[in-house]
Amino acid sequence: MAAGGAVNLAAALARLDAPYRPGIVGHYNDNKLAVVKVDGEFVWHSHADTDDFFLVLDGRLTIQLRDRDDVVLKAGELYVVPAGVEHCPKADAECHVLLIEPRGTVNTGDAGGPLTAPEREL
Amino acid sequence: MAAGGAVNLAAALARLDAPYRPGIVGHYNDNKLAVVKVDGEFVWHSHADTDDFFLVLDGRLTIQLRDRDDVVLKAGELYVVPAGVEHCPKADAECHVLLIEPRGTVNTGDAGGPLTAPEREL
Repeated sequence: MAAGGAVNLAAALARLDAPYRPGIVGHYNDNKLAVVKVDGEFVWHSHADTDDFFLVLDGRLTIQLRDRDDVVLKAGELYVVPAGVEHCPKADAECHVLLIEPRGTVNTGDAGGPLTAPEREL
Repeated sequence: MAAGGAVNLAAALARLDAPYRPGIVGHYNDNKLAVVKVDGEFVWHSHADTDDFFLVLDGRLTIQLRDRDDVVLKAGELYVVPAGVEHCPKADAECHVLLIEPRGTVNTGDAGGPLTAPEREL
């Protein structure tokens, strides 16, 4: 990505080699803008101090929420998980998502574990 | 829009009656998520204290930047105008955009004028 330039999200996604390994494509104020491939089930987790923005670009994403109905998103649909709400994304087939979270947010939140991915720029 | 629910951006855009009249579809922390139709040229303006997030959902958007090359975006492409950079969006045909700005940000920034639109929820 050219620093500060236009970002083609499909091209950025094509550079991702595995699900649940987000790539940062830019920043908006103190937030990172990242693309991620979702395939299979993630891990239940929450972020105490921040909402979590999901916009589906391709495919179908289910966001499971603790003690609430699942939210099912298809391309062109977004959902913001409120701060502190435990959630677990999953997809039956590869799904492409734009994420927005504050810089430094850990993808697995309070859960940690093997799916924790380092922040990396694409 | 159901408060806190999934947002279908195309359905939200279909409820907009005029260009440059954004409709808020949700919030992410202290930011508003809004859709807007762009058609024709907006007004040159800047936001001293915040970046300005643009994601094109449909059509083609040109973001003119003072003393820099234009940024041209098509569907699936995003650009973040840095804080303080004077810019002027334009489109030769109707174009659909997702905007993210801090709550309370005025669409015309420091310029004001007749294109200034009130914040409104869709």
